[in-house]
Amino acid sequence: MSIAVIYGGTRPNGNTETLAKHATQGIEVEEIFLNEHNVLPIIDKRHDEKGFQDRNDDYNTLIERILRHDTLVFATPIYWYSMSGTMKNFIDRWSHSMRDNNFPDFKTQMSNKEAYVIAVGGDSPSIKGLPMMEQFNYIFEFMGMEFKGYIIGKGNQPGDITQDKVALFQAEELREELRVK
Amino acid sequence: MSIAVIYGGTRPNGNTETLAKHATQGIEVEEIFLNEHNVLPIIDKRHDEKGFQDRNDDYNTLIERILRHDTLVFATPIYWYSMSGTMKNFIDRWSHSMRDNNFPDFKTQMSNKEAYVIAVGGDSPSIKGLPMMEQFNYIFEFMGMEFKGYIIGKGNQPGDITQDKVALFQAEELREELRVK
Amino acid sequence: MSIAVIYGGTRPNGNTETLAKHATQGIEVEEIFLNEHNVLPIIDKRHDEKGFQDRNDDYNTLIERILRHDTLVFATPIYWYSMSGTMKNFIDRWSHSMRDNNFPDFKTQMSNKEAYVIAVGGDSPSIKGLPMMEQFNYIFEFMGMEFKGYIIGKGNQPGDITQDKVALFQAEELREELRVK
Amino acid sequence: MSIAVIYGGTRPNGNTETLAKHATQGIEVEEIFLNEHNVLPIIDKRHDEKGFQDRNDDYNTLIERILRHDTLVFATPIYWYSMSGTMKNFIDRWSHSMRDNNFPDFKTQMSNKEAYVIAVGGDSPSIKGLPMMEQFNYIFEFMGMEFKGYIIGKGNQPGDITQDKVALFQAEELREELRVK
Repeated sequence: MSIAVIYGGTRPNGNTETLAKHATQGIEVEEIFLNEHNVLPIIDKRHDEKGFQDRNDDYNTLIERILRHDTLVFATPIYWYSMSGTMKNFIDRWSHSMRDNNFPDFKTQMSNKEAYVIAVGGDSPSIKGLPMMEQFNYIFEFMGMEFKGYIIGKGNQPGDITQDKVALFQAEELREELRVK
Repeated sequence: MSIAVIYGGTRPNGNTETLAKHATQGIEVEEIFLNEHNVLPIIDKRHDEKGFQDRNDDYNTLIERILRHDTLVFATPIYWYSMSGTMKNFIDRWSHSMRDNNFPDFKTQMSNKEAYVIAVGGDSPSIKGLPMMEQFNYIFEFMGMEFKGYIIGKGNQPGDITQDKVALFQAEELREELRVK
Repeated sequence: MSIAVIYGGTRPNGNTETLAKHATQGIEVEEIFLNEHNVLPIIDKRHDEKGFQDRNDDYNTLIERILRHDTLVFATPIYWYSMSGTMKNFIDRWSHSMRDNNFPDFKTQMSNKEAYVIAVGGDSPSIKGLPMMEQFNYIFEFMGMEFKGYIIGKGNQPGDITQDKVALFQAEELREELRVK
Repeated sequence: MSIAVIYGGTRPNGNTETLAKHATQGIEVEEIFLNEHNVLPIIDKRHDEKGFQDRNDDYNTLIERILRHDTLVFATPIYWYSMSGTMKNFIDRWSHSMRDNNFPDFKTQMSNKEAYVIAVGGDSPSIKGLPMMEQFNYIFEFMGMEFKGYIIGKGNQPGDITQDKVALFQAEELREELRVK
């Protein structure tokens, strides 16, 4: 069993990253920092005769890396009450992968994975971050993935997250869960 | 008084576009198709000494066009239960504009605008699109904009939206509202 | 095929009732006005050795009436951003019916029904009424019922709903749907 | 400064009660068990010439007890993805108190209070309990109360909550917060 952490942040050592690293400390995980890669927005070709075209970016490589793992941790800062555009673009592209002959079993493979979400926001995240969690829930439900849990931390300034004792405790509990995977 | 329609779709003549055009038929509006422009993801520099850096893309030009109008209509397909990554990237960038000396009154100017959302989705959009509407509500609330209304249409295949009589009727009602702006 | 409308309002001829009657005009439906009956709050005995006890109120009679129908329309005013306590008490009691030997097939029978919700509220109902719709969605999902659609109207003063053209149109569309059941 | 805990459960020593007691252990609080009192559903008379009529139940006495305190903890099991009907009836009645000459400053007094919510549910409460938290948020917002925080625990069988380490930790953190009030 193995674990990938997909980071949607755009600032090195951001609060979300700190929290996700706290949760995975001492555990072997593959880390994917989306902002270090070129992932273009989807161009919807679902109804185009020729179908989707390759975007010639890093997306496929990232998907290949992710598909090898059993557990996916989505770690995103809360930007404007939702996941970062960086992460949204990545997920939007799944619509292509589901129809891509290069990934014939994409949805089936994804459906065998377990998912977690770690998110940090500054503006009442435990309330205003809830719609995002509902969306992740719908996303995982659609893919057949099990949504195993989430952590919402509070932070704005760099380092703030280290003051959020509940989030840290939840990260430690999650660490125990991930350790046995 | 004037109106801008900001399109987040990535397919020409998509259902969302059709619905938004139905709502604005016969009314002078400025149309902004985000997918025809280069809008890069934000790189969060809020806590960086030097602050945000210009991304050298089309974003600033688009913001200038938008700021001229009193009413903004956000027209986005529902991708994965949320706005398209294309539109999300555009909104994420507002975090820069709020701290950009080139737009010293950005938030104040935005706070004087009225906002509408038009969205079309395929998977139970009237339920599973609700978290997105809550997010738009939080976004507008944060900016001090008035969220005047929204339409959620149902459609998957091209042209489906023309079968959604309620959405079309709502678009016609919205048209009356927009006509007097 | 037959239809029951379950009213959760507590004021005769309220806006919700007006809207629901607009939707069912000319159609044979059984109307159940919960506020005309005595429905006590549930007393949770799920984990009690003796199980639930009969509450000696009108609840069972109402359930019997409902079970005869294929389509259930839940018509509730939005009180404090949710269904009325009157309707909530009624639904809470389903936890008993699911364990009641007098209704051995309660859940199975319910799972064959289709559900609609009609609700009217005064404080931004199209946004602030959304969590209630998500809850109805979870409720129907749990029971295996199909959530066929909902209407959220806006109204505060008596008669206000007659000004909500979109809600009236939706009610008329719903009427066409119900007519063929 | 003083604290009231308002219990919406209907089973003695339920999981919600256990969690709320864990959070208030060693702290002087006034406990109000709604199910030990007679609180009738509201009858909406907002638009009636004579206005609301006294319901001759225990509601007013309970409101008087609550108004003496600065901090209110709402402790409710999650029944059908929302607060219990018992608690909903209690809150519905606030619509009367806001127009009751016996409580001329009801809303102002309430607006000076801080609120917490403690809830335990069995069916994916951390996701499916979110709409309820959004509703509490709207309720407190309307009343001008500050929503200081919430805990969602997981439990079904009696005693289950003692296995939810995160909820217990959150309760202990809340205890520190309440201790200094």
